[in-house]
Order: sequence, then structure tokens, then C-alpha cells
Amino acid sequence: RINGERLWAALMELAQIGATAKGGVKRLALTDLDKQGRDLVVGWGREAGMSITIDQIGNVFMRRDGTDNTLPPVMTGSHIDTQPTGGKFDGNYGVLAGLEVVRTLNDLHIKTRAPIEVAFWTNEEGSRFVPVMMGSGVFCGAFSLETAYAAKDTEGKTVGEELARIGYKGEQVPGDHPIGAYFETHIEQGPVLEDADKVIGVVPAVMGLSWYDCVVTGMEAHAGPTPMGLRKDALQVATTIMQEVVAIANRYPPYGRGTVGMVQVFPNSRNVIPGEVTFSIDLRNVNDELLNTMHGEITAFIDATRDRTGLGISLERVSYYPPCPFHPDCVGAVRNATEKLGYSVMDVVSGAGHDAIYAARLAPAGMIFVPCKDGISHNEIEDAKPEHLEAGCNVLLHAMLERAVA
Amino acid sequence: RINGERLWAALMELAQIGATAKGGVKRLALTDLDKQGRDLVVGWGREAGMSITIDQIGNVFMRRDGTDNTLPPVMTGSHIDTQPTGGKFDGNYGVLAGLEVVRTLNDLHIKTRAPIEVAFWTNEEGSRFVPVMMGSGVFCGAFSLETAYAAKDTEGKTVGEELARIGYKGEQVPGDHPIGAYFETHIEQGPVLEDADKVIGVVPAVMGLSWYDCVVTGMEAHAGPTPMGLRKDALQVATTIMQEVVAIANRYPPYGRGTVGMVQVFPNSRNVIPGEVTFSIDLRNVNDELLNTMHGEITAFIDATRDRTGLGISLERVSYYPPCPFHPDCVGAVRNATEKLGYSVMDVVSGAGHDAIYAARLAPAGMIFVPCKDGISHNEIEDAKPEHLEAGCNVLLHAMLERAVA
Ligand SMILES: NC(=O)NCCC(=O)O
Ligand SMILES: NC(=O)NCCC(=O)O
Repeated sequence: RINGERLWAALMELAQIGATAKGGVKRLALTDLDKQGRDLVVGWGREAGMSITIDQIGNVFMRRDGTDNTLPPVMTGSHIDTQPTGGKFDGNYGVLAGLEVVRTLNDLHIKTRAPIEVAFWTNEEGSRFVPVMMGSGVFCGAFSLETAYAAKDTEGKTVGEELARIGYKGEQVPGDHPIGAYFETHIEQGPVLEDADKVIGVVPAVMGLSWYDCVVTGMEAHAGPTPMGLRKDALQVATTIMQEVVAIANRYPPYGRGTVGMVQVFPNSRNVIPGEVTFSIDLRNVNDELLNTMHGEITAFIDATRDRTGLGISLERVSYYPPCPFHPDCVGAVRNATEKLGYSVMDVVSGAGHDAIYAARLAPAGMIFVPCKDGISHNEIEDAKPEHLEAGCNVLLHAMLERAVA
Repeated sequence: RINGERLWAALMELAQIGATAKGGVKRLALTDLDKQGRDLVVGWGREAGMSITIDQIGNVFMRRDGTDNTLPPVMTGSHIDTQPTGGKFDGNYGVLAGLEVVRTLNDLHIKTRAPIEVAFWTNEEGSRFVPVMMGSGVFCGAFSLETAYAAKDTEGKTVGEELARIGYKGEQVPGDHPIGAYFETHIEQGPVLEDADKVIGVVPAVMGLSWYDCVVTGMEAHAGPTPMGLRKDALQVATTIMQEVVAIANRYPPYGRGTVGMVQVFPNSRNVIPGEVTFSIDLRNVNDELLNTMHGEITAFIDATRDRTGLGISLERVSYYPPCPFHPDCVGAVRNATEKLGYSVMDVVSGAGHDAIYAARLAPAGMIFVPCKDGISHNEIEDAKPEHLEAGCNVLLHAMLERAVA
């Protein structure tokens, strides 16, 4: 069993770096605060006897040797960068749970056959630099190191410059680093576990997602003198599409998701009929065929709406991640560990993307979820219970042992 | 008959002051450009032999004596301030049509019994300082001079300071100025005349309007991990209300109007379910009972939606103007003049507020509309045809003569 108090203490100490007034953390990727956070975690890793490797995109791997170091390591990890209005647990928990596993193995003088590694990936959040999950994405070859280096923040600073500046531009070629199996513990970022009153979520898969930008073009005109029948009200047409996004998701329960999160109205004046409305569409499903069906339905609805209204409507897909089923061996290891430890458990499909989906392209992977308060994350009020974090870490320990000792 | 070319030349010369690259005019109330515009028009008034009076809110009255100066003047007017993206005709046409009437009377050596006055009212547009129709509102006692003086622009400058600075804080107490009858010529700001291919709109009334702010409060949450059934999506609830606004207007043809022009979504992020949506509602009708019915329907719909969804929804009425029917004598004078001159004509209820609705509280009033291109105003591409502007000015001449000579 791991030491829950030590895990909590590490989380609270790391959360000091970039702590916000409302109890959250603001530690954006590749800032001075990120460097401080990285230095603290790397220091803890060295104290725990681990050797450190940094790759060219700044991913950090902390290694505890096994008895057979020709075997690829059993890895765990996550990220320590945060959202601008981030919390103490998102990402940080996955990294410090890995550290706690190693500290526990040291305490108990347990030797594993395969080496154990704790990784933290660069810029998972994507708040300062896009794309999101940058470090793991470069690592698995989803996009190139050059693309990542060239990414700019709003002040024009690049990832390449900032990595060098904080001293985390390493030598290792990204991906030139074998992985035997990958586990990631994370707060759920949703309300399912809390709602069902379960402690551990076994994650069979991560949903695929399609992101779109939709623009409806009508004609702006004065709200008073323009008769209803002569209007080209872009907002009225846009609202029917916004409702269809949710209707589509509701037609594909339980894993259909449909969200319009971002809306811009032009000219956005009280007595002017909107001439143009731009909005985002986020569709998800754990089944790629259903995700594709949902894609077909929004496309068809928009085509029909264009014909019906005569207004201009464009729909552009700006991102697509296919669903990511995790490996039966890793999912099984998590399930076995949970059963052995006797925690209440349920399957929870991850609705959010994680570094694990990129790691899964290179090695068997699995995730462990624990509840977070009201399902809230990306918010300074993000919260989680010490006993749940401890339980998730115990599951991680046993799942990793199953893979690393055999 | 008036001189259409002279009218057009005056419009084009005034439009030079604050001319924009796209052919519009930006001459905000009480700016240096407004002073230049005022000086130009006042200069033209003096050249035409008129005497000038300025009141304490900066309304300017240019007077041509009658043969019986104990009679209250027959007044015409409008405004010369513009929107930030304004056109050459909105307001300016009404003032310069009045000037052209006086120039024509001078040319033809016509004496009227009652004096003729051409007014321009301060800050009709309300773009720099709220409330709109400020000068005419103070003049008729709708709100106090102190309220108006205290109004601030975004830089914190007040109407009182700015009036003094540009030299248009006059001596006369607002409203201490008799009016026998008031006429205002204006571009329609809507598509009705153009759509029906008519030259003159006789305006029987101006619609009443109710403005509201509506706030829907849900709970922001991550778009991926939050199941559809556990969401409190403020935008989805807001869109049903936005659609009802239009549905209500459509239930009261032909003069029901319903518009949502302004929308703000919080936190407005692609993968966050909206936690709060704020939007404006603009309801209009020419019949106050029907406007009140529409008010009742939106209120009832929002109450029912609150009950149905459990989300917080607030509705605050932020402005109300009752419908303003114009005086039969003035409407009749416009109709007579149009018939005599043989222009094609139809009744057009004004959907937009004008200074005439405040003048109508003090004296018989009426309006004359001419078509504007595509019904567009408050836009730099606002346009109108010289022959239509000339026709409207001829109607003004004859309508004023009917009232001023009798
Ligand atoms: N974990 C997380 O918030 N990932 C961002 C991408 C997503 O919206 O799923
Ligand atoms: N004429 C005009 O645009 N008035 C502003 C108030 C309204 O929206 O009617």
C-alpha cells in the first residue's frame, strides 16, 4: 500500500508553485513557474534514486532500474502544466502518483523485473501553445518536432525558445525510448463516478472527437423597421443548428456528446438583426462508426438548413481524434488491482483527451480515474478527496507491479 | 418645388466632415467633428437669413420669421450626429431638407403666416452618450437636464463638459420654446418602401418598444466527460428563448417585431459547456396592447422554461417606449402634399425611434419617409437616391406650407 499522506503532501507542495488566490494553480507550460515545478519533481525523483532523461520536446522520464534492464520500462505519467484557471490535481496527480509508487517500492525494498518510469509530458493543456498534448504527440509521431518548436504563444514566443530558456530542451530524440506498458491516473473531470458513488473508474477507452467551426451568414439590419418576413437573421438560423448538435448527441446514448461552447455574434448590438454568427461544435463518441454517423447528421442538417433558409452556412472540421480503446492487458491489470484491493469500481469511458491516447499508439496502455468534486476541472475550485487519490495510487501500484514483475 | 441638386450638394458637403474610407460618416455627438458639422449648418442657416437659438442641451433652432410672429413656429428637424459606422443620410437628411425648404421659400419670396423653424437635436444616436434621442428627450421633459449633463462617454467625459467645450451649451431653457407643428423627414431605415417600389412613406405612427436583458445560468463543465443527462447547458436553454422571441413577433403580424441582437457566452471555450449566457431581447409593436401581450408571452415562456429546466433565468426590462401615433392633422398634411405632387405613396409605420416621438409629446407631429438602399442604415454603405430625397423634401415643403400659411 502506498502512503496517502505523503502523496497528499507532495500534491500540496507542488500546488504552491503558481498557487492562485481562489485555491487553484496557474502554471502554464514552459513558464518560469513550470520550470520551478519541473525542478521540484525532478529533485524528488533523484532523491528517490531515479535517473533522469529529457527529450528534445522537454518530456521528462524518471527511471527506477529493474532486475532486467533489457526489458522496456513499465511507465506511468501525466503532465504538470495547468490551465490558466487550473486546479491542483489535473495532470499533477498522475505524475505524483507515479512518484509515490516508486517511493513505496523503495520503502518496501521491492525489486521489479522491468524498470519503472515516471514521465511528465510537455504542454498537455494546450492553453499557452497549441496543439494540446504536445509532448506526447511529438513522442508518438502524431506531428513533428519542428511543428511543435514553431508553436507561438500570444506574445510570439516559441516552444523551441522557451524550452531552451527554462533548460528543458533535452538531447534524446522523441520516441527513441521504448515503453513496455503505460498507465495514467487522472481525476475523472466528469461527474460519473461521484454520481454513482464509486471510488475507481476503469477506463476502457477514450472517446473520439470532431471539432468544427460553423459560420451562418445573413444580413444585418435594423431591428425595428425590418419586417419579420424580410429578415435574414443569422442568429435564428444558428440556434436551430445549436439545438440539433445536442439532439444528435442524445440520439446516440450513452456515449454521444454534443456541445456548442463558443459563440460570436456580429455586430452584437441590441437593435441590429445579427448578420453573422460563428460558433464551435464539439461532437464525441467512443464508437468511431457512431461518431461518423453523428458527423453525417450534422452535415446533412446544415445542408438542409441552407436549402430551407437560403442563408450562407459553412461548416469546417478543425480537429479529429479517433476513439482510443485501451489495451485489454492494461485494462485488465487495472481491474485486477482494483478487485484485489476491494475498492468500489465501475467502467468510465474518458470523455476528455489525455497523453495516454498518444502513448497507446506505441505500447499497451490503460488509465485509472478517481472522482473529482462535482465533476469539475479546468477551474480553480477543482477538488478531490485524499482517500480517493490514495486509492487510485494503490491501484496504480498494483497494476504496474502486475506488468513489471511478470 | 425645392432644388434637388442644391439639397444633394448640401448633403455631400456635410458628409465630408467625418467622412470614412468606405463612404460613410463618423461624426459622434459633441466631438470636434460634430462642432464642425454644427458650425457649417448654422452658417448655412444664417446665410438663408435665419436667426439662431441654442438651448442648454445644445439643441439648435434656426428661425425664419413669419408674418405673424406671435404664432408658434411650424418646425422641422432631425439630428446631425451619426453612428460610429454611420451614413450620409440618417438624420442629416431631415435637417438639410428643412434648410432646403427655407432656401426655396426665400427663392420664391414666399411669406408664411407662422414662422418656420429648422431644428437639430443633440445626440440622437446615443452611440457616444446614452440615452438616445437625448436633446429631444430633455426638450420634452422625458428626463432632466442634469441626467443628460451627467452622461459619460467611455473615456469619462460628460455631456455637460463636452457641450461647453464645443461651444454649444446655450442659454435657453429646454422646452421653453413653443412649437405649432413638427415634421421630420428621414430615410426609412427599413426595406418596406423599396420592396413595394414606392417613393414616399406616410408615417402614421412609431412602434413602441421594450428592451430586456436575459441571463440564463447553468453550470460550466467539460464537454467530453459530462454525460448529456447531467448537464446544465445554459446555451441550449437560451436558444429556446431566442427562438420564442421571434415566434412571439410572428404571432402578431404585421407590426410585431422580435430580435435578439446581442449574445455573450461564458466562458466561451470550445470544450466547455456554457455556464452562463446573457442576451438582449427587443420586442416592438405599434399597438401598445399587443406589445403588452408580447411582454406577457415572453415573461410566461421564461417562467415555464425556468420550471421545466431548473436553470436560473432572469429577465429585466431595461427600456420601454410606448407606441407613438402621430397627429391626424400632420399625417393628413403629409398625405395631401404627396397626393398633390403625384408621388407613389404608402403608409409605413416607423419601426425605429426618432426625435419626432418626443416632439409629438408637445405638438402635433408627423414624419415623411423616403426609401434607402436595401433598407440599410447604421452602416457606412447606407445609401439613398437623389430623386427620392428630392421628393421627400418637396412633400415636406408642401406639408409645412399647409400648416404655416393657414
Ligand atoms: N483532458 C483534457 O481536457 N483534454 C483536452 C481535450 C479535450 O477537450 O478532451
Ligand atoms: N432611429 C434609430 O435608430 N433609433 C434608435 C432606437 C431604435 O432602435 O429604434
